[in-house]
Amino acid sequence: MTSSRVTIPTMTTLQTTSIHDAYRERSVLITGGLGFIGSNLARRLVEVGDVEVYLLDALVPDQGGNLFNIEDIKDQVTLHIADMGDPSVINHLVGGMDYVFNLAANVSHLDSMLFPQHDLKLNCQSQLTLLEACRNFNPHVKIVYTSTRQVYGKPLYLPLDEQHRCAPVDINGVHKLAAEHYHLLYHRVYGVRSTCLRLTNTYGPRHLMRHNRQSVIAWFIRQAMDGGMIDLFGEGRQKRDFNYVDDVVEALLMIGASEKAEGDVFNLGSHEPVSLSHLAEELIWLTGHGTVRYVPFPPERQLIDIGNCYSSYRKIETLVGWEPRTTLRAGLASTIEFYNNHRAHYWDSKIESTPRILTTA
Amino acid sequence: MTSSRVTIPTMTTLQTTSIHDAYRERSVLITGGLGFIGSNLARRLVEVGDVEVYLLDALVPDQGGNLFNIEDIKDQVTLHIADMGDPSVINHLVGGMDYVFNLAANVSHLDSMLFPQHDLKLNCQSQLTLLEACRNFNPHVKIVYTSTRQVYGKPLYLPLDEQHRCAPVDINGVHKLAAEHYHLLYHRVYGVRSTCLRLTNTYGPRHLMRHNRQSVIAWFIRQAMDGGMIDLFGEGRQKRDFNYVDDVVEALLMIGASEKAEGDVFNLGSHEPVSLSHLAEELIWLTGHGTVRYVPFPPERQLIDIGNCYSSYRKIETLVGWEPRTTLRAGLASTIEFYNNHRAHYWDSKIESTPRILTTA
Repeated sequence: MTSSRVTIPTMTTLQTTSIHDAYRERSVLITGGLGFIGSNLARRLVEVGDVEVYLLDALVPDQGGNLFNIEDIKDQVTLHIADMGDPSVINHLVGGMDYVFNLAANVSHLDSMLFPQHDLKLNCQSQLTLLEACRNFNPHVKIVYTSTRQVYGKPLYLPLDEQHRCAPVDINGVHKLAAEHYHLLYHRVYGVRSTCLRLTNTYGPRHLMRHNRQSVIAWFIRQAMDGGMIDLFGEGRQKRDFNYVDDVVEALLMIGASEKAEGDVFNLGSHEPVSLSHLAEELIWLTGHGTVRYVPFPPERQLIDIGNCYSSYRKIETLVGWEPRTTLRAGLASTIEFYNNHRAHYWDSKIESTPRILTTA
Repeated sequence: MTSSRVTIPTMTTLQTTSIHDAYRERSVLITGGLGFIGSNLARRLVEVGDVEVYLLDALVPDQGGNLFNIEDIKDQVTLHIADMGDPSVINHLVGGMDYVFNLAANVSHLDSMLFPQHDLKLNCQSQLTLLEACRNFNPHVKIVYTSTRQVYGKPLYLPLDEQHRCAPVDINGVHKLAAEHYHLLYHRVYGVRSTCLRLTNTYGPRHLMRHNRQSVIAWFIRQAMDGGMIDLFGEGRQKRDFNYVDDVVEALLMIGASEKAEGDVFNLGSHEPVSLSHLAEELIWLTGHGTVRYVPFPPERQLIDIGNCYSSYRKIETLVGWEPRTTLRAGLASTIEFYNNHRAHYWDSKIESTPRILTTA
């Protein structure tokens, strides 16, 4: 055997193999399955093949749930439009699952400050309902919970690692941290096999694009595509990290397949943080539209702003070999192409079709 | 002037002076005011004189609320028996207050594991209701929130200081930590002047003595007084710190009077941690009754046990000069004397009198 004939599997091949092994012929529930990341994850699981994919989504108004997100795979998944916080729904649903990707959440930091009790209901009460259902009806299910790097609050050092102290600066961060603690506690006490991922800014196709209260990058993309104003607070120097949604989906599947990840917390992150002004320039260059406008910080955002903020993904890389693979430019280009083709379903999306619905509650 | 004629005020004199200055002619609301610490705090404020003392308590069954706790001061306080989680109660009540001592809580770690949603309601939802009321109707009120060293979880080092990472091991700890975050957040964002105290094991007169799910030390006291068995799990070597309730009340008043404490978190603690077996021996010696029995850890307690656990109180000592003044022996002796005189009201307490009630809800 000569060295020229040795085929060294690429990381991607290895990943694909282990993901196939882990998920084929298994049942997977995605909470928040009509949302941005949930629907991209569902599509990837459909591609894996031989996976029973169940989606649970309450289509809470103003959140990211959008039936068009699964238009092309709707016959290959089973959708439950129902509230995860309703024990009669979730107790029944978790019983037969091998995996739960627990993505359902209230995600707006600004809204959480305006309606803290609503955020509590979605991000804590419903999470407890799910975990109690698992404990009682499927105690050894694998759960991957998507948390946020917002739990760290204002960084004491950068990049943020998982040892950084948690001091959330908004209600959403408080509740996401509490829900992380729930997951780790149900692992330690009851054997539920939970892992928490602290996501950073995720972007890509199928995001909520209707308003600017959920994601800075989604709103910038929309403004650039529409030839509108991209408002940069301060001078836009705040550095952030951005992950393309396909990379996040891969992280979810890899960490879900890892026994060693159970009971632990992992950051995602990107190779290189970029400033918001650089992001805006990229978008203007890619779309040929949009204009930057420098504006003072609005008071309600200044109060919960955290300055530069980006995470180290070394821990997940060390454990399962994950790293982001999509460059910012390539990811933004795919994203823009997607919305150019499907703008009508995102700029002012409505519920447009009635897929196979098993439960309504 | 000769040095022999200089009078150096003792710390106690200084404390008393500043506490009088801070609280006289002020209005003070104590949530959980019929409970163990709340009622002792109320009594101290009545002693200060010229303080309008308002107590709010829902008399949640199986918590520490007990009307006998204020029997001797009931004509000097105003009692509202109502739910803090009801905005129509609390919105009205916080308006005229200078201080809120926010002690209302679900405090049983074991119960929180059995009924997590109930713990969420009392320890998070109601706390948000109070803070929203303050934000809207009295944004610069001073709030002292009583948290617990349980938020630290299993110690990485001892004694615990306020920099120790927080990883609560039970639902109660998760929710108490979330409520701390609320208080700090409402301080930072809305200017509500909150301080959090992380209490350790508090003991003394007017504690809940009916069952053993709330406080180890209270139960040991009862068992010794009744000549019963004091069960020590493992060998009773777990070291803990204990504060006599009068010392905790003094800490509450001192920290409430300190502007510099606002937006910050402080431990309480004792001079010297003691083992549970030493505590049991002290009680047997003081009462002349009771027997130690060594038993294996019950599984439901083992799962949330944290081993040795005691806190450093250096931070609060440095800021306001607080330190515990009551020795364990003296504190236990006073406590035993109190229950010898009032056993009927604590061993199987019932609601025995109807004090001046302004609100019932």
